[in-house]
Amino acid sequence: MSDVFRFSKTVTDGDGTMRDLLGGKGAGLAEMCRMGVPVPPGFTIGTRSCISYINNNHQLEDGLRAEIEKNLTWLEQELGKKLGGGDAAPLLLSVRSGARVSMPGMMDTILNLGLNRDTVEQLANATGNPRFAYDSYRRFIQMYSNVVLDLSHSDFENMLEDQREAEGVKIDSDISLDGLKQLIATYKKFIKEEHGQPFPEDPRDQLWGAINAVFDSWNNDRAILYRKINNIADNWGTAVNVQSMVFGNMGESSGTGVCFSRNPSTGEPGPYGEYLRNAQGEDVVAGIRTPNKIDNPDDPESMAAHWPEVYQQLLDTLVVLEKHFKDMQDTEFTVEDGKLFLLQTRNGKRTSKASLRIAIDLYNEGLIDRIEAIQKIVPDSLSQLLASEFDQEAKQQLLKDGRLLGRGLNAGPGAATGVIALSAEKAVSMSEEGLPVILVREETSPEDIAGMHASTGILTQRGGMTSHAAVVARGMGKPCVVGCTVMTVHYESSTIQMGGRRLKEGEFISIDGTTGEVLEGKIPTTSSPLLRELETGQFEAGSQGEQFAKLMSWIDDIAVMKVRTNADTPADARVARLLGAGGIGLCRTEHMFFGEDRIQNVRKMILAHDEESRIEALHALQPHQEQDFYELFREMDGLPVTIRLLDPPLHEFLPHEASLIESLATNMGLTPSAVRARVRDLEESNPMLGHRGCRLGISHPTIYRMQVSAIVGAVNRARAEGVDAQPEVMVPLIGTKGELDHVKRSIEPIIRESGLEIPIGTMIEIPRAALTADEIAESAEFFSFGTNDLTQCGMGLSRDDSGSFLPLYIDAGIYKRDPFKSIDQKGIGRLVKMASEAGREIKPDIKLGVCGEHGGDPDSIRFFHQVGLDYVSCSPYRVPIAKLAAAQAGIEERA
Amino acid sequence: MSDVFRFSKTVTDGDGTMRDLLGGKGAGLAEMCRMGVPVPPGFTIGTRSCISYINNNHQLEDGLRAEIEKNLTWLEQELGKKLGGGDAAPLLLSVRSGARVSMPGMMDTILNLGLNRDTVEQLANATGNPRFAYDSYRRFIQMYSNVVLDLSHSDFENMLEDQREAEGVKIDSDISLDGLKQLIATYKKFIKEEHGQPFPEDPRDQLWGAINAVFDSWNNDRAILYRKINNIADNWGTAVNVQSMVFGNMGESSGTGVCFSRNPSTGEPGPYGEYLRNAQGEDVVAGIRTPNKIDNPDDPESMAAHWPEVYQQLLDTLVVLEKHFKDMQDTEFTVEDGKLFLLQTRNGKRTSKASLRIAIDLYNEGLIDRIEAIQKIVPDSLSQLLASEFDQEAKQQLLKDGRLLGRGLNAGPGAATGVIALSAEKAVSMSEEGLPVILVREETSPEDIAGMHASTGILTQRGGMTSHAAVVARGMGKPCVVGCTVMTVHYESSTIQMGGRRLKEGEFISIDGTTGEVLEGKIPTTSSPLLRELETGQFEAGSQGEQFAKLMSWIDDIAVMKVRTNADTPADARVARLLGAGGIGLCRTEHMFFGEDRIQNVRKMILAHDEESRIEALHALQPHQEQDFYELFREMDGLPVTIRLLDPPLHEFLPHEASLIESLATNMGLTPSAVRARVRDLEESNPMLGHRGCRLGISHPTIYRMQVSAIVGAVNRARAEGVDAQPEVMVPLIGTKGELDHVKRSIEPIIRESGLEIPIGTMIEIPRAALTADEIAESAEFFSFGTNDLTQCGMGLSRDDSGSFLPLYIDAGIYKRDPFKSIDQKGIGRLVKMASEAGREIKPDIKLGVCGEHGGDPDSIRFFHQVGLDYVSCSPYRVPIAKLAAAQAGIEERA
Repeated sequence: MSDVFRFSKTVTDGDGTMRDLLGGKGAGLAEMCRMGVPVPPGFTIGTRSCISYINNNHQLEDGLRAEIEKNLTWLEQELGKKLGGGDAAPLLLSVRSGARVSMPGMMDTILNLGLNRDTVEQLANATGNPRFAYDSYRRFIQMYSNVVLDLSHSDFENMLEDQREAEGVKIDSDISLDGLKQLIATYKKFIKEEHGQPFPEDPRDQLWGAINAVFDSWNNDRAILYRKINNIADNWGTAVNVQSMVFGNMGESSGTGVCFSRNPSTGEPGPYGEYLRNAQGEDVVAGIRTPNKIDNPDDPESMAAHWPEVYQQLLDTLVVLEKHFKDMQDTEFTVEDGKLFLLQTRNGKRTSKASLRIAIDLYNEGLIDRIEAIQKIVPDSLSQLLASEFDQEAKQQLLKDGRLLGRGLNAGPGAATGVIALSAEKAVSMSEEGLPVILVREETSPEDIAGMHASTGILTQRGGMTSHAAVVARGMGKPCVVGCTVMTVHYESSTIQMGGRRLKEGEFISIDGTTGEVLEGKIPTTSSPLLRELETGQFEAGSQGEQFAKLMSWIDDIAVMKVRTNADTPADARVARLLGAGGIGLCRTEHMFFGEDRIQNVRKMILAHDEESRIEALHALQPHQEQDFYELFREMDGLPVTIRLLDPPLHEFLPHEASLIESLATNMGLTPSAVRARVRDLEESNPMLGHRGCRLGISHPTIYRMQVSAIVGAVNRARAEGVDAQPEVMVPLIGTKGELDHVKRSIEPIIRESGLEIPIGTMIEIPRAALTADEIAESAEFFSFGTNDLTQCGMGLSRDDSGSFLPLYIDAGIYKRDPFKSIDQKGIGRLVKMASEAGREIKPDIKLGVCGEHGGDPDSIRFFHQVGLDYVSCSPYRVPIAKLAAAQAGIEERA
Repeated sequence: MSDVFRFSKTVTDGDGTMRDLLGGKGAGLAEMCRMGVPVPPGFTIGTRSCISYINNNHQLEDGLRAEIEKNLTWLEQELGKKLGGGDAAPLLLSVRSGARVSMPGMMDTILNLGLNRDTVEQLANATGNPRFAYDSYRRFIQMYSNVVLDLSHSDFENMLEDQREAEGVKIDSDISLDGLKQLIATYKKFIKEEHGQPFPEDPRDQLWGAINAVFDSWNNDRAILYRKINNIADNWGTAVNVQSMVFGNMGESSGTGVCFSRNPSTGEPGPYGEYLRNAQGEDVVAGIRTPNKIDNPDDPESMAAHWPEVYQQLLDTLVVLEKHFKDMQDTEFTVEDGKLFLLQTRNGKRTSKASLRIAIDLYNEGLIDRIEAIQKIVPDSLSQLLASEFDQEAKQQLLKDGRLLGRGLNAGPGAATGVIALSAEKAVSMSEEGLPVILVREETSPEDIAGMHASTGILTQRGGMTSHAAVVARGMGKPCVVGCTVMTVHYESSTIQMGGRRLKEGEFISIDGTTGEVLEGKIPTTSSPLLRELETGQFEAGSQGEQFAKLMSWIDDIAVMKVRTNADTPADARVARLLGAGGIGLCRTEHMFFGEDRIQNVRKMILAHDEESRIEALHALQPHQEQDFYELFREMDGLPVTIRLLDPPLHEFLPHEASLIESLATNMGLTPSAVRARVRDLEESNPMLGHRGCRLGISHPTIYRMQVSAIVGAVNRARAEGVDAQPEVMVPLIGTKGELDHVKRSIEPIIRESGLEIPIGTMIEIPRAALTADEIAESAEFFSFGTNDLTQCGMGLSRDDSGSFLPLYIDAGIYKRDPFKSIDQKGIGRLVKMASEAGREIKPDIKLGVCGEHGGDPDSIRFFHQVGLDYVSCSPYRVPIAKLAAAQAGIEERA
């Protein structure tokens, strides 16, 4: 069978399903031709020929050249033109690569092929625009020399610059016709010297050279790297699309433009685009002339007003394309002498807002069903709908004024503006004065929680996407920029240094947690309109709230992995439930320990010299914990609430600054040196691998017993009030079955005595636990994968310290993505899979969930779905994203 | 088949192989009877009956009672005695437990069963010693009440004390005959009140009660816990041994004693033991009379002199036993009226020195072959032969004077005495003054290496068996005590506090790295005589050196896992080779960075502002590294030398104390604050999981390139001198194949250009590397498992911080052993196994080794042998231990 596929209005060999053979572009062109959409005709040389070319010592395989010649003849007849011109009009071609999946900018393209000293004159005459013809010729020579002859682009740019200087002009388009002719002569001379051969005048030679070059480009360095990073097989190959050129600059009845089938910014239906008459695509890009709108009732120069017939033809085409591709289309078109040609159509990129609206509208219009609507939306885009936003004009002004200080990692989406506070205490006090505050720290620790609460945004010098600051800020839904390494925090002088400037505590900065930008000065912000609407519980018809609610209800109708939330406070729980959470998958009890009314007793408990005073301090804490749990149960009425017993090392609860140690000592009736000694005793070289989690529960059994008693008390209180409390107790940092059994022996009697039935499960966050999950499953009623710690231990990678080399690793392609953002499926994912299988083998109905940060990452969610987990749990603001991703994973699997 | 097994000189049903059925003691008694060794006859009720008893609601199974009665009648006939006496002499019995494996002290024993108000009189008459008879009766009642009737031991002790007071005597044996009779009456009254039943007078009732009690004792709490900890199956059960009593206190022709068949302290051939005439075993224990030697030509009271016939009989028996059991025996015997009875024989415990000598002697005597000789020696015992020793008298004197300050972990065997130095600098300067020094630190870090070298011993407050101090000290063969938490180091006042005392820097202390003891004051020490002999290379016939060399040569004849050493210096390498190392499995290049002549350039390299000055500093380092490697190659001529590229985080090379930072700044021409900032930048929250290993090699490629260039240079220099250098380059902390490939791309060209062939392999120390070992094997020529880090990451357990809960975990049976000492086979071992299999699948001849601390642990070595690794690598002084353990594992497998 031939590997050359024609496409034209009369004959089309391929179709849109044949991406593997034709590449994406070739399949798209074929499909448009089949639909009757006007497309400049041409043919596609299939991907198979590329691989055969490479394996055949860079020679076209036998018969392919004849095949191409045959199709070229067909194309010439189709158009009544001839490659090389002569007695007929000259046929000009574009030669483009096109792989199975898009590899933007990786491979090569050649335009205007077929020009030579004869055809350029023919073109000049036909267009009546010799300057255009010669400029096209100049560009062709330059492009061809670079791509096919492998000559340096910069040499040609230098010759071009010389020519500009010689004529005393600044831009290329001001070079005279004679200048262009002179330049072309210079080019050709240079080529002959450098390449040893004259520039090919024969268009057929040009064509063979171009085809070989496109095939060769499959194996250029950047394409190989790109494939490696994106997991694209080396043996897929690229197709070559040989297509007739059309020109939008043949006069006033010609033109070129781009047009979306709907507004990509708002999602509003109707065409949205621009065009330029008597122009080519590159003129639009160059920005020398201002294009006109396609459709603007007030503008007589709009396409609708000026070319009503072509306009109508475009509209009809867009409708056909949308119906066919079932999505908003982004098209490029050219009008040659009153005739419309589509050069490209693809699903259009759009804002989050537009994405939601378009999906719902397409459903309402009957173009797609619910399943398709769910698939249309990129899960991560929903986070933007929930984020606060900068006033864009004010932000642009600051950027123009050079007030961008630097960039960090975009750890918590949204915009925040406020005065710099360099300590949690300062953040609280400034906030009490009514100021909006940005908490700026080298890095945050649990001591800073109150300060983070009091702030509108958080900025740190160190830390990655799952550092303490990032995790907590996302949980609170606060804008956050972390790992801003260009910033230095000087606590002594209460200043920060960044972007060559020094700012004092109390001065205004603005952070964009969606982009990672940090700016000097104040920018007005608005909170997410969607969130405000959801909070009212009332949606106007057609509002974003209604669209969102509709989407969520569709998702709920699909039986897929459930989504819970990580929430420690009633406020978090409420937001999460509003956003569709099906329960709490992780309540970190330690966050409750930092409240003003608790921390003193927590510290007493830690500093206690004997069991008695330790128990006394714990008794004082118990009512607070009980109240916390009770409130969570109330918010989550009827839904499961997984409570993790105390996890962090005790030293996190003790102060480290001298003044705080002294005041603590005074409070406790101890000497500062005694407190200091205890703080020091508790310090660890590697706290992440230290005395925490169940190790703490085993060495201090009274802590876990107090917590379980508080849970029991809260359940009883809630149920007495008719609240359906559904607690689950989760033991952290289990590495062996023996640990879990030990903890259970200590806490189970409390539950048994209460007469309640509360399941006890465990985190699987230590590699050893995953490796011995069969044993552990005997003692656990559920597993919750703590994939943050599992990643840290499994990859030997501290999330707080990895900032110093992670970016380098990702640049070098060693890691494809930050493994704390998206789970490393091959390594850490294998542990999750092994443990799930082993757990289910022992206990087929064991409940399996994830409560690491990966629970909010769509790629990771797809993986967890494939492994067969029951639920993921994520920050409240990630809940809709996770639900959408889970639904898509479910749909994908069914297909 | 009957579950009751007789043993006597005439009829013996069981034998020594039937441990599972008869328990260890029962099988041993049966075997001795079969050999014709005189043993008091009896019978064993098998372990099966125990399990049936437990499952049968604590009832003896049908027919068992009749079976026991039948055997009891046989026993009565055998001895011409009767249980309950009457017309015949009374038969007295011991009833003892005996499980398949020894569970010392876990289960119960009853002696003198059969005594009642009648038989005690018969016994009194027969022995002519009524006091002895009544005291036996008293003891029997007390023991039986406690074990069978479950009455409190202390109540009886109180009554006994009352009786002593009433008579005004201090020790039990001074209580009068009447007093004993009175006490027995008091006991019986008490028993009736407390137990509700009178003390059983019928010896048959006594017997049934005792048998049930022994069976029940299988399930007492301490036995259950012991089984759990020691992996003994619950369904093995215990046997019951019912044996006739013999008495060594029937007059001057009776006696009792213990005797080893060879000297357990030196290994010298010939009987070694003590006996007492007219006495029972407990009299020997009570220490009221001084026993006489068995064999002492100068002592007319020695057994040889006094009872030449019985002595000769004992000697003959010992020879028979040794021949039979092929090992030195530890026996208990009783002589009743001139007649010798063996009550027990077992392989005798012995010192390390004796262990080696006995194994060699038994071989020389033709009792065992080489394989058996190798199996006789406990590998760990060899470490004592290589350790320095305290003068025992001087040490005992200090202990008596109350100069023991406390105990820590025995991290490096041997004895050291010296003046306290609280910093590495001080250690160096004091040592230069000619003083022996003990370096005392909270914990050590690589900065302390020079100080450790200058010291004779190391003592730290914190850290576990694989902390920095422990690992380095063992590598240097220095005595070391770590984790001495009872000690506080006060750097400010240059003192330490411990055991209620405060010692100043410069005062003498002594540490015993074999026991963990720390003493105040000076104790003379001697270095290991074996090591001194090995260093001469000349062995006298029969010397320990000759014995050692013989053992090692036998081991080398067995083809098993090879043993390499972890060595960073020529001195380490020399010792290791002397002790039998087959190469270097781990050379930590960073240890070379701390030398006086290097550290300045290392710091320059770290503080460099640009690539140029970094390269300059590295150039200055290169000759030193080259010299280091060259010297190692020379020591290891012909053997492989695995060089690990730089591993630790850079901040380990920078000073942290203010004064040192200042002097560094001056040296570098920088401001102290600039140096401080860099130190701070490099600090990490969890350095173990931070920017180190290959991550460093990737972010600072010039470091690895310098190291590889130095290796190439050293190889060339060595080979030019005829030295057969066999380098292997090892890349640390690999987690993904991509990392290894990245490093290889950087260093391979250097090797290629040199024309040398140097294999490049990787550490497998990150769980992810183990999980994806198939991929990594494609790029690695060998794997070396870094089981320290693999344990840390895989168990989420920092070895430096685990000291705060590890002891608790081991006490509670959660961990069976410190996982840093002996590999966790189920979890971490599984990773090693998975990775080995995956690696071999891809590359069948890939070389697999271990270079963690586990490489020197016999249990771990057995495991590594089972996994099929090619070699282990350990500290120089562990090499013989590892070789012996590897040989034993190999022998075990063949069997």
